Amino acid sequence: MAVLTSVSLSELGAGLPENHPLRGPTRTSPLVAAALGESVDRTPVWFMRQAGRSLPEYRATRGDGDMLEACFTTEMVTEITLQPIRRHGVDAAVLFSDIVVPLKAAGVDVTIKKGVGPVMGSPVRDAAGVAAIGELGDVSAITAAVRQLTAELDDIPVIGFCGAPFTLASYLIEGGPSREFAHTKAIMWSQPELWSSLLERLTKLCGQFLREQILAGASAIQLFDSWAGALSPADYITSVLPHSRALLDSVADLGVPRVHFGVGTGELLPFMAVPECEVVGVDQRVSLATGIERIGSNHSVQGNLDPASFFAGAAEVQRQAAQIVRAGAAARGHIFNLGHGVLPQTDPDQITRLVEWLHQQPPAEAD
Amino acid sequence: MAVLTSVSLSELGAGLPENHPLRGPTRTSPLVAAALGESVDRTPVWFMRQAGRSLPEYRATRGDGDMLEACFTTEMVTEITLQPIRRHGVDAAVLFSDIVVPLKAAGVDVTIKKGVGPVMGSPVRDAAGVAAIGELGDVSAITAAVRQLTAELDDIPVIGFCGAPFTLASYLIEGGPSREFAHTKAIMWSQPELWSSLLERLTKLCGQFLREQILAGASAIQLFDSWAGALSPADYITSVLPHSRALLDSVADLGVPRVHFGVGTGELLPFMAVPECEVVGVDQRVSLATGIERIGSNHSVQGNLDPASFFAGAAEVQRQAAQIVRAGAAARGHIFNLGHGVLPQTDPDQITRLVEWLHQQPPAEAD
Repeated sequence: MAVLTSVSLSELGAGLPENHPLRGPTRTSPLVAAALGESVDRTPVWFMRQAGRSLPEYRATRGDGDMLEACFTTEMVTEITLQPIRRHGVDAAVLFSDIVVPLKAAGVDVTIKKGVGPVMGSPVRDAAGVAAIGELGDVSAITAAVRQLTAELDDIPVIGFCGAPFTLASYLIEGGPSREFAHTKAIMWSQPELWSSLLERLTKLCGQFLREQILAGASAIQLFDSWAGALSPADYITSVLPHSRALLDSVADLGVPRVHFGVGTGELLPFMAVPECEVVGVDQRVSLATGIERIGSNHSVQGNLDPASFFAGAAEVQRQAAQIVRAGAAARGHIFNLGHGVLPQTDPDQITRLVEWLHQQPPAEAD
Repeated sequence: MAVLTSVSLSELGAGLPENHPLRGPTRTSPLVAAALGESVDRTPVWFMRQAGRSLPEYRATRGDGDMLEACFTTEMVTEITLQPIRRHGVDAAVLFSDIVVPLKAAGVDVTIKKGVGPVMGSPVRDAAGVAAIGELGDVSAITAAVRQLTAELDDIPVIGFCGAPFTLASYLIEGGPSREFAHTKAIMWSQPELWSSLLERLTKLCGQFLREQILAGASAIQLFDSWAGALSPADYITSVLPHSRALLDSVADLGVPRVHFGVGTGELLPFMAVPECEVVGVDQRVSLATGIERIGSNHSVQGNLDPASFFAGAAEVQRQAAQIVRAGAAARGHIFNLGHGVLPQTDPDQITRLVEWLHQQPPAEAD
């Protein structure tokens, strides 16, 4: 990573307002630099679900309240997003939110059930169901939080995010979380027009939501196609990837780095490395070295410590992290992260210790 | 598959009693022939979980009774195992059982909770927990069922099975089903001696159980390492595969074909193709063509229709099945199956139609 490589975004921050942090303090942050393949003085680190149930202060703030209500409460979003910055000193703040937030804001009957996940009032399996998904409604509570956060965080970037069309479609079609995605795949295979109309609708909705987050101050965004790994490469390429590309492309004019992420995507990495993103996330099921080979040299990578490592003690965490930092040196740029989200039972001190350790390491040199 | 290739087992049926079906009627069955890479006049087909909740006659037989009790009731096991043979005309009967049956027979406090899966009275996370797993107790109700089945089924092979040491260990350590396997991996990484002692104990126990099933009449066995796909190749190779090999090897002297199966194992297939098995199972996340490339020409393959395809209508099922049959021609031998188990909500008529269609196809020729 010693060589300054070219920026993949044609015009960084091109479509952003003058006072956007990416045109100021976050431009030279390790996160943005690594995303663009520029040289860094340390490997940036943040964690998916860093703002969440592993933190006692999160549990205290949230109490027994409703998850989606919390996601639409400015003070709650701001406070929870800041908690891991204060505690762990990570290099980016990821907005406290959920991938179904834009669905809620589009009038979809969705709740987040404790211990289950997002549950729909009724599954979406026909044209009427697709038509009932409205435009993005009021998300001003969320954009207000992003503005507060960027003001407070100065040179620490805020990462906005949304779910990818496939992953959101799977929740809508199944009516909730799934392991097998039977109805989702059935519609994908046997009703291609219905499928396309749903994914196009979601692409538009999520594009609007991403745009709002970016214009309010997010310096990078991440697309979560969490369940894409359930698909064969052929199905992914034909029926899913074009929609994800359209979504990523829809915010290209704004010029912020875009991370493309999924779980169990070892087979899909070569295809996820599209020109419409700057960074590809790698989960823990492949070694980062293998992931980098598959992603190639036109993208930076993010990942890929196993979230389970925090249960094995600090020595084991450091052993695995060191391996990942070394492997990351072969990439255009490397953002340290987990392969998936922080598990709720994780001891937060383990996370803090890892961040401290990572910040003491010199950026790795390619072998 | 037109060429008769050599048998990978050094002595087929070597250790079996004279009256064992593999020394008689099942020897020339399409299933056994395909497993050994011999020429077949049709592609054999069976389905994981073919004897299960998709069948109304299964639900009627089981009623509200306890799952593990059913697994230890001879008449129940025999009847349920036969149901998909009668209805679908599949080419093999897979014993109605569960991977935790040998644990139950070894005195472990395990129940199968409806809608959840296997749940342990207390998780096994220390040496005392490992020591409390006894020897294989009385499985005579099960072996009696195997004997009844083989007598009735004549030239249709009965497939016995057991869980692989890793997958069983994950249930024991987590205390139930898991998505993240945090405690399992933590012990694997940080307590290698405890890990080895647990997996060795399970290897011995499952080896005893497989032996009982084979001696009672099973003409083939399958090792279910269902959750191996949660591991990186490095961890799999170091901490898991040696135990699976030892287990498969422990019944080598009997000389029945052995299938090695897991879910989400695309990355692991080259390593799962060990000399101690004749067939490697391929799940639906990789194309069968890719699976065969990774497995090589010393093994037959089994798979890999997506269980979700049955929800997309007969035309789509046949389209996908035809692709799989064509791809299978490149393998040493091909046993048609799903990539994972039949889903409970599957329309059983779809399964029957697929079997009829498959049986009308000539065996595919390699391109």
